[in-house]
Amino acid sequence: MKQALLLLNMGGPNNIEEVELFLRNMFADKNILTMNPYMRKFIANIIISKRLEDVKENYRLLGGKSPLPELTDQLISKLKNYLDIPIYPAMRYVPPFADKALFQCQKDGVEELILFPMYPQYSTTTTLSSVEDIQQRCEAMGYAPRITLIDPYYDDYDYIAACCEKIMDTMKGKETKEYDLLLSAHGLPLSIIKAGDPYQNQVEGNASAIKTYLASKGVAFHEIKLVYQSKVGSSAWLEPNLVDVLRNPTHRKVL
Amino acid sequence: MKQALLLLNMGGPNNIEEVELFLRNMFADKNILTMNPYMRKFIANIIISKRLEDVKENYRLLGGKSPLPELTDQLISKLKNYLDIPIYPAMRYVPPFADKALFQCQKDGVEELILFPMYPQYSTTTTLSSVEDIQQRCEAMGYAPRITLIDPYYDDYDYIAACCEKIMDTMKGKETKEYDLLLSAHGLPLSIIKAGDPYQNQVEGNASAIKTYLASKGVAFHEIKLVYQSKVGSSAWLEPNLVDVLRNPTHRKVL
Repeated sequence: MKQALLLLNMGGPNNIEEVELFLRNMFADKNILTMNPYMRKFIANIIISKRLEDVKENYRLLGGKSPLPELTDQLISKLKNYLDIPIYPAMRYVPPFADKALFQCQKDGVEELILFPMYPQYSTTTTLSSVEDIQQRCEAMGYAPRITLIDPYYDDYDYIAACCEKIMDTMKGKETKEYDLLLSAHGLPLSIIKAGDPYQNQVEGNASAIKTYLASKGVAFHEIKLVYQSKVGSSAWLEPNLVDVLRNPTHRKVL
Repeated sequence: MKQALLLLNMGGPNNIEEVELFLRNMFADKNILTMNPYMRKFIANIIISKRLEDVKENYRLLGGKSPLPELTDQLISKLKNYLDIPIYPAMRYVPPFADKALFQCQKDGVEELILFPMYPQYSTTTTLSSVEDIQQRCEAMGYAPRITLIDPYYDDYDYIAACCEKIMDTMKGKETKEYDLLLSAHGLPLSIIKAGDPYQNQVEGNASAIKTYLASKGVAFHEIKLVYQSKVGSSAWLEPNLVDVLRNPTHRKVL
Protein backbone atom coordinates (compact mmCIF):
# COMPACT_ATOMS: atom_id res chain seq x y z
CA MET A 1 0.00 0.00 0.00
CA LYS A 2 1.43 3.38 -1.05
CA GLN A 3 1.95 5.47 2.09
CA ALA A 4 2.73 9.06 3.10
CA LEU A 5 3.54 10.56 6.50
CA LEU A 6 1.95 13.82 7.65
CA LEU A 7 3.38 15.74 10.62
CA LEU A 8 0.44 17.50 12.31
CA ASN A 9 0.84 20.70 14.27
CA MET A 10 -0.92 24.00 14.88
CA GLY A 11 1.68 25.91 12.87
CA GLY A 12 3.27 29.22 13.74
CA PRO A 13 3.20 32.60 11.96
CA ASN A 14 5.80 32.71 9.15
CA ASN A 15 5.88 36.52 9.48
CA ILE A 16 4.26 39.30 11.52
CA GLU A 17 1.40 39.69 9.01
CA GLU A 18 0.39 36.06 9.58
CA VAL A 19 -0.16 36.57 13.33
CA GLU A 20 -3.73 37.74 12.74
CA LEU A 21 -4.51 34.77 10.46
CA PHE A 22 -3.05 32.46 13.11
CA LEU A 23 -5.30 33.90 15.83
CA ARG A 24 -8.40 34.08 13.58
CA ASN A 25 -8.08 30.43 12.55
CA MET A 26 -7.32 29.28 16.10
CA PHE A 27 -10.36 30.97 17.59
CA ALA A 28 -12.57 29.83 14.71
CA ASP A 29 -11.75 26.22 15.75
CA LYS A 30 -14.76 24.55 17.39
CA ASN A 31 -12.38 22.36 19.40
CA ILE A 32 -10.76 25.47 20.91
CA LEU A 33 -13.85 27.60 21.60
CA THR A 34 -16.49 24.97 22.30
CA MET A 35 -19.69 27.01 21.86
CA ASN A 36 -22.15 27.77 19.06
CA PRO A 37 -20.69 29.40 15.90
CA TYR A 38 -22.25 32.85 16.52
CA MET A 39 -21.02 33.06 20.09
CA ARG A 40 -17.62 31.74 18.96
CA LYS A 41 -17.27 34.49 16.37
CA PHE A 42 -18.29 37.12 18.92
CA ILE A 43 -15.81 35.87 21.56
CA ALA A 44 -13.07 35.41 18.94
CA ASN A 45 -13.40 39.06 17.87
CA ILE A 46 -13.11 40.23 21.47
CA ILE A 47 -10.03 38.10 22.17
CA ILE A 48 -8.30 39.05 18.91
CA SER A 49 -8.95 42.79 19.20
CA LYS A 50 -7.62 42.69 22.78
CA ARG A 51 -4.55 40.58 22.09
CA LEU A 52 -3.42 41.07 18.49
CA GLU A 53 -0.85 43.80 19.13
CA ASP A 54 0.59 42.04 22.21
CA VAL A 55 0.94 38.78 20.31
CA LYS A 56 2.61 40.56 17.37
CA GLU A 57 5.03 42.15 19.82
CA ASN A 58 5.85 38.69 21.23
CA TYR A 59 6.63 37.39 17.73
CA ARG A 60 8.78 40.47 17.06
CA LEU A 61 10.80 39.48 20.15
CA LEU A 62 11.17 35.99 18.62
CA GLY A 63 12.72 37.54 15.48
CA GLY A 64 9.54 38.36 13.55
CA LYS A 65 8.29 34.78 13.13
CA SER A 66 7.65 31.50 14.87
CA PRO A 67 10.56 29.01 14.94
CA LEU A 68 8.10 26.16 14.31
CA PRO A 69 8.09 26.05 10.46
CA GLU A 70 11.89 25.85 10.29
CA LEU A 71 12.09 23.23 13.05
CA THR A 72 9.48 21.16 11.24
CA ASP A 73 11.49 21.33 8.00
CA GLN A 74 14.62 20.21 9.87
CA LEU A 75 12.69 17.32 11.40
CA ILE A 76 11.42 16.23 7.98
CA SER A 77 14.98 16.30 6.59
CA LYS A 78 16.13 14.04 9.43
CA LEU A 79 13.18 11.67 9.06
CA LYS A 80 13.97 11.25 5.34
CA ASN A 81 17.16 9.45 6.39
CA TYR A 82 15.03 6.74 7.99
CA LEU A 83 11.87 6.55 5.89
CA ASP A 84 11.42 5.95 2.20
CA ILE A 85 7.96 7.54 1.89
CA PRO A 86 6.91 11.15 1.22
CA ILE A 87 6.73 13.30 4.38
CA TYR A 88 4.70 16.51 4.58
CA PRO A 89 3.90 19.11 7.24
CA ALA A 90 0.18 19.78 7.81
CA MET A 91 -0.50 22.84 9.93
CA ARG A 92 -3.83 23.80 11.41
CA TYR A 93 -3.86 27.62 11.58
CA VAL A 94 -1.27 28.97 9.10
CA PRO A 95 0.36 27.64 5.91
CA PRO A 96 1.45 25.02 5.03
CA PHE A 97 -2.15 23.84 5.56
CA ALA A 98 -3.03 20.18 5.06
CA ASP A 99 -4.57 20.77 1.61
CA LYS A 100 -1.19 21.16 -0.08
CA ALA A 101 -0.04 17.74 1.17
CA LEU A 102 -3.41 16.12 0.51
CA PHE A 103 -3.61 17.30 -3.13
CA GLN A 104 -0.12 15.91 -3.74
CA CYS A 105 -1.00 12.60 -2.05
CA GLN A 106 -4.20 12.27 -4.06
CA LYS A 107 -2.31 13.04 -7.28
CA ASP A 108 0.39 10.48 -6.42
CA GLY A 109 -2.16 7.79 -5.61
CA VAL A 110 -1.24 7.53 -1.91
CA GLU A 111 -3.54 4.94 -0.32
CA GLU A 112 -2.60 5.33 3.36
CA LEU A 113 -1.98 8.55 5.29
CA ILE A 114 0.01 8.06 8.48
CA LEU A 115 -0.80 10.98 10.78
CA PHE A 116 1.85 11.83 13.36
CA PRO A 117 0.63 14.55 15.75
CA MET A 118 3.65 16.52 16.99
CA TYR A 119 1.80 16.98 20.30
CA PRO A 120 3.21 14.57 22.93
CA GLN A 121 -0.21 14.46 24.68
CA TYR A 122 -3.56 13.81 23.03
CA SER A 123 -6.09 16.60 23.35
CA THR A 124 -9.35 17.37 21.58
CA THR A 125 -7.96 20.92 21.16
CA THR A 126 -4.88 19.76 19.25
CA THR A 127 -4.74 16.19 17.92
CA LEU A 128 -8.48 15.78 17.37
CA SER A 129 -8.71 19.24 15.77
CA SER A 130 -5.96 18.32 13.27
CA VAL A 131 -7.39 14.88 12.52
CA GLU A 132 -10.88 16.30 11.89
CA ASP A 133 -9.33 18.96 9.65
CA ILE A 134 -7.66 16.23 7.54
CA GLN A 135 -10.85 14.14 7.40
CA GLN A 136 -12.98 17.10 6.29
CA ARG A 137 -10.50 18.18 3.63
CA CYS A 138 -10.26 14.61 2.27
CA GLU A 139 -14.03 14.37 2.12
CA ALA A 140 -14.33 17.70 0.30
CA MET A 141 -11.72 16.49 -2.23
CA GLY A 142 -13.41 13.13 -2.79
CA TYR A 143 -10.23 11.47 -1.52
CA ALA A 144 -10.67 8.39 0.71
CA PRO A 145 -7.26 7.08 1.83
CA ARG A 146 -6.84 4.75 4.77
CA ILE A 147 -5.93 6.91 7.80
CA THR A 148 -3.60 5.67 10.56
CA LEU A 149 -3.02 7.80 13.67
CA ILE A 150 0.21 7.46 15.67
CA ASP A 151 -0.27 7.22 19.46
CA PRO A 152 0.69 10.02 21.89
CA TYR A 153 4.32 9.75 23.00
CA TYR A 154 4.18 11.62 26.33
CA ASP A 155 5.86 8.75 28.19
CA ASP A 156 7.87 7.19 25.36
CA TYR A 157 11.27 6.38 26.83
CA ASP A 158 13.38 7.90 24.05
CA TYR A 159 11.33 11.10 24.13
CA ILE A 160 11.68 11.32 27.92
CA ALA A 161 15.43 10.65 27.63
CA ALA A 162 15.80 13.42 25.02
CA CYS A 163 13.92 15.94 27.20
CA CYS A 164 15.98 15.02 30.26
CA GLU A 165 19.28 15.25 28.37
CA LYS A 166 18.30 18.87 27.52
CA ILE A 167 17.61 19.56 31.20
CA MET A 168 20.89 17.95 32.27
CA ASP A 169 22.84 19.90 29.61
CA THR A 170 21.35 23.17 30.86
CA MET A 171 22.29 22.32 34.44
CA LYS A 172 25.88 21.40 33.60
CA GLY A 173 28.17 22.95 36.23
CA LYS A 174 25.22 23.94 38.43
CA GLU A 175 24.13 22.31 41.69
CA THR A 176 20.70 20.81 40.82
CA LYS A 177 19.77 20.40 44.51
CA GLU A 178 19.67 24.20 44.81
CA TYR A 179 17.13 24.58 42.00
CA ASP A 180 13.40 24.05 41.56
CA LEU A 181 12.59 22.51 38.17
CA LEU A 182 9.27 23.81 36.80
CA LEU A 183 7.74 21.66 34.06
CA SER A 184 5.46 24.12 32.25
CA ALA A 185 2.66 22.70 30.09
CA HIS A 186 0.12 24.69 28.08
CA GLY A 187 -3.03 25.06 30.19
CA LEU A 188 -6.61 24.22 29.22
CA PRO A 189 -10.00 25.28 30.59
CA LEU A 190 -11.20 22.84 33.27
CA SER A 191 -14.49 22.52 31.36
CA ILE A 192 -12.64 20.76 28.51
CA ILE A 193 -10.94 18.37 30.95
CA LYS A 194 -14.26 17.61 32.65
CA ALA A 195 -15.77 16.78 29.25
CA GLY A 196 -13.30 13.88 29.10
CA ASP A 197 -10.16 15.28 27.44
CA PRO A 198 -7.20 13.05 28.53
CA TYR A 199 -4.66 15.89 28.24
CA GLN A 200 -4.14 16.48 31.97
CA ASN A 201 -3.69 12.76 32.67
CA GLN A 202 -1.04 12.52 29.98
CA VAL A 203 0.74 15.69 31.13
CA GLU A 204 0.92 14.21 34.65
CA GLY A 205 2.24 10.97 33.16
CA ASN A 206 4.88 12.94 31.28
CA ALA A 207 5.96 14.77 34.46
CA SER A 208 6.21 11.53 36.48
CA ALA A 209 8.24 9.91 33.69
CA ILE A 210 10.66 12.88 33.66
CA LYS A 211 11.02 12.73 37.47
CA THR A 212 11.73 9.00 37.29
CA TYR A 213 14.26 9.33 34.46
CA LEU A 214 16.16 12.12 36.25
CA ALA A 215 16.21 10.11 39.49
CA SER A 216 17.47 7.05 37.58
CA LYS A 217 20.42 9.21 36.44
CA GLY A 218 21.05 10.42 39.99
CA VAL A 219 19.89 13.97 39.19
CA ALA A 220 18.10 15.46 42.23
CA PHE A 221 16.42 18.88 42.14
CA HIS A 222 15.25 20.75 45.24
CA GLU A 223 11.74 20.23 43.87
CA ILE A 224 10.17 19.24 40.54
CA LYS A 225 6.83 20.94 40.00
CA LEU A 226 4.30 20.70 37.16
CA VAL A 227 2.70 24.06 36.25
CA TYR A 228 0.36 25.28 33.50
CA GLN A 229 0.86 28.37 31.35
CA SER A 230 -0.90 30.67 28.85
CA LYS A 231 -4.30 31.01 30.55
CA VAL A 232 -6.74 33.19 28.58
CA GLY A 233 -9.98 34.69 29.94
CA SER A 234 -11.69 34.40 33.29
CA SER A 235 -12.92 30.77 33.37
CA ALA A 236 -11.25 28.14 35.57
CA TRP A 237 -8.15 26.57 34.00
CA LEU A 238 -5.76 23.81 35.04
CA GLU A 239 -3.64 24.73 38.06
CA PRO A 240 -1.18 25.73 39.42
CA ASN A 241 -0.58 28.60 37.01
CA LEU A 242 3.06 29.27 36.07
CA VAL A 243 2.73 33.00 36.71
CA ASP A 244 1.35 32.48 40.22
CA VAL A 245 4.16 30.05 41.04
CA LEU A 246 6.81 32.48 39.76
CA ARG A 247 5.22 35.36 41.69
CA ASN A 248 5.28 33.38 44.93
CA PRO A 249 8.32 31.15 44.74
CA THR A 250 8.88 29.03 47.85
CA HIS A 251 12.44 28.71 46.66
CA ARG A 252 14.71 31.17 44.88
CA LYS A 253 16.61 29.31 42.18
CA VAL A 254 14.26 28.21 39.43
CA LEU A 255 14.96 26.56 36.06
CA MET B 1 6.88 19.43 69.76
CA LYS B 2 5.78 15.92 70.82
CA GLN B 3 4.86 13.96 67.70
CA ALA B 4 3.16 10.70 66.71
CA LEU B 5 2.83 9.00 63.32
CA LEU B 6 -0.49 7.52 62.16
CA LEU B 7 -0.61 5.11 59.22
CA LEU B 8 -3.99 5.63 57.52
CA ASN B 9 -5.74 2.91 55.57
CA MET B 10 -9.20 1.51 54.96
CA GLY B 11 -8.43 -1.60 56.99
CA GLY B 12 -9.33 -5.17 56.14
CA PRO B 13 -11.57 -7.69 57.95
CA ASN B 14 -9.66 -9.44 60.76
CA ASN B 15 -12.04 -12.40 60.45
CA ILE B 16 -15.06 -13.51 58.41
CA GLU B 17 -17.52 -11.95 60.90
CA GLU B 18 -15.95 -8.52 60.31
CA VAL B 19 -16.69 -8.59 56.56
CA GLU B 20 -20.18 -7.19 57.12
CA LEU B 21 -18.88 -4.40 59.39
CA PHE B 22 -16.27 -3.58 56.75
CA LEU B 23 -18.90 -3.27 54.00
CA ARG B 24 -21.40 -1.39 56.23
CA ASN B 25 -18.81 1.20 57.26
CA MET B 26 -17.48 1.57 53.71
CA PHE B 27 -20.89 2.22 52.19
CA ALA B 28 -21.87 4.53 55.07
CA ASP B 29 -18.92 6.76 54.02
CA LYS B 30 -20.14 9.97 52.35
CA ASN B 31 -16.91 10.10 50.35
CA ILE B 32 -17.65 6.67 48.87
CA LEU B 33 -21.39 7.02 48.16
CA THR B 34 -21.71 10.73 47.43
CA MET B 35 -25.47 11.23 47.85
CA ASN B 36 -27.86 12.24 50.62
CA PRO B 37 -27.80 10.08 53.80
CA TYR B 38 -31.20 8.44 53.19
CA MET B 39 -30.37 7.46 49.62
CA ARG B 40 -26.92 6.30 50.78
CA LYS B 41 -28.44 3.98 53.37
CA PHE B 42 -30.89 2.59 50.81
CA ILE B 43 -28.17 1.94 48.20
CA ALA B 44 -25.80 0.55 50.84
CA ASN B 45 -28.40 -2.02 51.92
CA ILE B 46 -28.91 -3.14 48.33
CA ILE B 47 -25.17 -3.50 47.65
CA ILE B 48 -24.48 -5.30 50.92
CA SER B 49 -27.38 -7.75 50.64
CA LYS B 50 -26.28 -8.56 47.07
CA ARG B 51 -22.57 -8.90 47.78
CA LEU B 52 -22.04 -9.98 51.39
CA GLU B 53 -21.82 -13.73 50.78
CA ASP B 54 -19.58 -13.33 47.70
CA VAL B 55 -17.23 -11.04 49.59
CA LYS B 56 -17.12 -13.45 52.56
CA GLU B 57 -16.26 -16.25 50.13
CA ASN B 58 -13.41 -14.14 48.72
CA TYR B 59 -11.99 -13.60 52.21
CA ARG B 60 -12.32 -17.35 52.91
CA LEU B 61 -10.13 -17.91 49.84
CA LEU B 62 -7.61 -15.46 51.36
CA GLY B 63 -7.44 -17.62 54.51
CA GLY B 64 -10.41 -16.20 56.43
CA LYS B 65 -9.07 -12.66 56.82
CA SER B 66 -7.44 -9.74 55.06
CA PRO B 67 -3.62 -9.71 55.00
CA LEU B 68 -3.67 -5.94 55.60
CA PRO B 69 -3.63 -5.82 59.46
CA GLU B 70 -0.59 -8.11 59.66
CA LEU B 71 1.26 -6.26 56.89
CA THR B 72 0.58 -2.97 58.67
CA ASP B 73 2.00 -4.37 61.92
CA GLN B 74 5.13 -5.54 60.07
CA LEU B 75 5.51 -2.09 58.52
CA ILE B 76 5.22 -0.42 61.93
CA SER B 77 7.91 -2.74 63.35
CA LYS B 78 10.24 -1.78 60.51
CA LEU B 79 9.51 1.94 60.85
CA LYS B 80 10.36 1.78 64.56
CA ASN B 81 13.97 1.10 63.53
CA TYR B 82 14.09 4.55 61.91
CA LEU B 83 11.78 6.72 63.98
CA ASP B 84 11.81 7.50 67.67
CA ILE B 85 8.14 8.51 67.94
CA PRO B 86 5.01 6.43 68.63
CA ILE B 87 3.51 4.86 65.48
CA TYR B 88 -0.12 3.71 65.26
CA PRO B 89 -2.39 2.21 62.62
CA ALA B 90 -5.67 4.10 62.01
CA MET B 91 -8.15 2.16 59.91
CA ARG B 92 -11.30 3.56 58.40
CA TYR B 93 -13.78 0.65 58.25
CA VAL B 94 -12.68 -2.03 60.75
CA PRO B 95 -10.58 -2.03 63.94
CA PRO B 96 -8.07 -0.72 64.83
CA PHE B 97 -10.07 2.50 64.26
CA ALA B 98 -8.39 5.87 64.74
CA ASP B 99 -9.96 6.44 68.18
CA LYS B 100 -7.63 3.97 69.90
CA ALA B 101 -4.55 5.85 68.66
CA LEU B 102 -6.10 9.26 69.28
CA PHE B 103 -7.02 8.51 72.92
CA GLN B 104 -3.46 7.34 73.55
CA CYS B 105 -2.00 10.43 71.84
CA GLN B 106 -4.25 12.76 73.82
CA LYS B 107 -3.31 10.98 77.07
CA ASP B 108 0.41 11.20 76.22
CA GLY B 109 0.19 14.90 75.37
CA VAL B 110 1.08 14.46 71.67
CA GLU B 111 0.99 17.92 70.05
CA GLU B 112 1.47 16.98 66.39
CA LEU B 113 -0.11 14.10 64.48
CA ILE B 114 1.74 13.17 61.30
CA LEU B 115 -0.75 11.43 59.02
CA PHE B 116 0.74 9.06 56.46
CA PRO B 117 -1.94 7.73 54.06
CA MET B 118 -0.89 4.28 52.85
CA TYR B 119 -2.59 5.10 49.53
CA PRO B 120 0.04 6.02 46.90
CA GLN B 121 -2.49 8.29 45.14
CA TYR B 122 -4.65 10.96 46.77
CA SER B 123 -8.38 10.44 46.43
CA THR B 124 -11.38 11.96 48.18
CA THR B 125 -12.60 8.35 48.62
CA THR B 126 -9.49 7.27 50.54
CA THR B 127 -7.10 9.93 51.86
CA LEU B 128 -9.70 12.64 52.39
CA SER B 129 -12.11 10.16 53.99
CA SER B 130 -9.42 9.12 56.51
CA VAL B 131 -8.31 12.68 57.24
CA GLU B 132 -11.89 13.83 57.84
CA ASP B 133 -12.42 10.81 60.11
CA ILE B 134 -9.40 11.85 62.22
CA GLN B 135 -10.50 15.50 62.32
CA GLN B 136 -14.03 14.61 63.42
CA ARG B 137 -12.84 12.22 66.12
CA CYS B 138 -10.36 14.81 67.46
CA GLU B 139 -13.10 17.42 67.58
CA ALA B 140 -15.47 15.07 69.40
CA MET B 141 -12.71 14.35 71.95
CA GLY B 142 -11.86 18.01 72.48
CA TYR B 143 -8.34 17.22 71.23
CA ALA B 144 -6.68 19.84 68.98
CA PRO B 145 -3.23 18.64 67.89
CA ARG B 146 -1.41 20.13 64.94
CA ILE B 147 -2.08 17.87 61.93
CA THR B 148 0.51 17.31 59.18
CA LEU B 149 -0.40 15.28 56.09
CA ILE B 150 2.30 13.45 54.12
CA ASP B 151 2.08 13.91 50.32
CA PRO B 152 1.03 11.14 47.92
CA TYR B 153 4.00 8.98 46.83
CA TYR B 154 2.69 7.63 43.50
CA ASP B 155 5.83 8.73 41.65
CA ASP B 156 8.36 8.64 44.49
CA TYR B 157 11.48 7.06 43.04
CA ASP B 158 12.11 4.56 45.85
CA TYR B 159 8.49 3.43 45.75
CA ILE B 160 8.63 3.02 41.96
CA ALA B 161 11.92 1.13 42.27
CA ALA B 162 10.42 -1.23 44.90
CA CYS B 163 7.36 -1.95 42.69
CA CYS B 164 9.55 -2.59 39.65
CA GLU B 165 11.91 -4.88 41.56
CA LYS B 166 8.84 -7.01 42.40
CA ILE B 167 7.88 -7.12 38.72
CA MET B 168 11.42 -8.00 37.67
CA ASP B 169 11.65 -10.74 40.34
CA THR B 170 8.42 -12.29 39.10
CA MET B 171 9.70 -12.26 35.51
CA LYS B 172 13.04 -13.87 36.39
CA GLY B 173 13.80 -16.53 33.77
CA LYS B 174 10.91 -15.40 31.55
CA GLU B 175 11.14 -13.47 28.28
CA THR B 176 9.48 -10.11 29.13
CA LYS B 177 9.04 -9.21 25.44
CA GLU B 178 6.53 -12.06 25.13
CA TYR B 179 4.32 -10.70 27.93
CA ASP B 180 1.81 -7.89 28.34
CA LEU B 181 2.17 -6.17 31.73
CA LEU B 182 -1.21 -5.03 33.08
CA LEU B 183 -1.01 -2.39 35.82
CA SER B 184 -4.34 -2.78 37.60
CA ALA B 185 -5.58 0.11 39.75
CA HIS B 186 -8.81 0.24 41.76
CA GLY B 187 -11.45 1.95 39.63
CA LEU B 188 -13.66 4.90 40.57
CA PRO B 189 -16.93 6.28 39.18
CA LEU B 190 -16.26 8.90 36.49
CA SER B 191 -18.59 11.27 38.38
CA ILE B 192 -16.06 11.44 41.24
CA ILE B 193 -13.20 12.17 38.80
CA LYS B 194 -15.26 14.89 37.09
CA ALA B 195 -15.89 16.51 40.47
CA GLY B 196 -12.13 17.14 40.63
CA ASP B 197 -10.64 14.06 42.32
CA PRO B 198 -6.93 13.85 41.24
CA TYR B 199 -6.82 10.04 41.55
CA GLN B 200 -6.79 9.23 37.82
CA ASN B 201 -4.04 11.79 37.12
CA GLN B 202 -1.87 10.29 39.82
CA VAL B 203 -2.55 6.71 38.68
CA GLU B 204 -1.44 7.71 35.17
CA GLY B 205 1.65 9.35 36.66
CA ASN B 206 2.40 6.15 38.56
CA ALA B 207 2.05 4.04 35.39
CA SER B 208 4.33 6.35 33.37
CA ALA B 209 6.92 6.29 36.16
CA ILE B 210 6.86 2.46 36.21
CA LYS B 211 7.25 2.34 32.40
CA THR B 212 10.20 4.74 32.59
CA TYR B 213 11.90 2.86 35.43
CA LEU B 214 11.57 -0.50 33.66
CA ALA B 215 12.92 0.98 30.41
CA SER B 216 15.84 2.53 32.33
CA LYS B 217 16.71 -1.02 33.49
CA GLY B 218 16.43 -2.36 29.94
CA VAL B 219 13.25 -4.33 30.74
CA ALA B 220 10.93 -4.33 27.69
CA PHE B 221 7.46 -5.88 27.77
CA HIS B 222 5.36 -6.58 24.66
CA GLU B 223 3.01 -3.91 26.01
CA ILE B 224 2.42 -2.12 29.34
CA LYS B 225 -1.22 -1.28 29.87
CA LEU B 226 -3.02 0.55 32.68
CA VAL B 227 -6.40 -0.98 33.59
CA TYR B 228 -8.98 -0.41 36.33
CA GLN B 229 -10.61 -3.09 38.49
CA SER B 230 -13.42 -3.71 40.99
CA LYS B 231 -16.24 -1.78 39.28
CA VAL B 232 -19.52 -1.87 41.24
CA GLY B 233 -22.96 -0.94 39.88
CA SER B 234 -24.07 0.36 36.50
CA SER B 235 -22.69 3.93 36.41
CA ALA B 236 -19.71 4.86 34.19
CA TRP B 237 -16.32 4.07 35.78
CA LEU B 238 -12.72 4.65 34.77
CA GLU B 239 -11.68 2.56 31.75
CA PRO B 240 -10.43 0.21 30.40
CA ASN B 241 -11.83 -2.36 32.81
CA LEU B 242 -9.47 -5.21 33.78
CA VAL B 243 -12.12 -7.86 33.15
CA ASP B 244 -12.84 -6.59 29.62
CA VAL B 245 -9.12 -6.54 28.81
CA LEU B 246 -8.65 -10.09 30.11
CA ARG B 247 -11.71 -11.29 28.18
CA ASN B 248 -10.38 -9.82 24.94
CA PRO B 249 -6.61 -10.07 25.14
CA THR B 250 -4.82 -8.83 22.03
CA HIS B 251 -1.88 -10.87 23.24
CA ARG B 252 -1.75 -14.21 25.04
CA LYS B 253 0.89 -14.00 27.74
CA VAL B 254 -0.20 -11.63 30.48
CA LEU B 255 1.38 -10.80 33.85
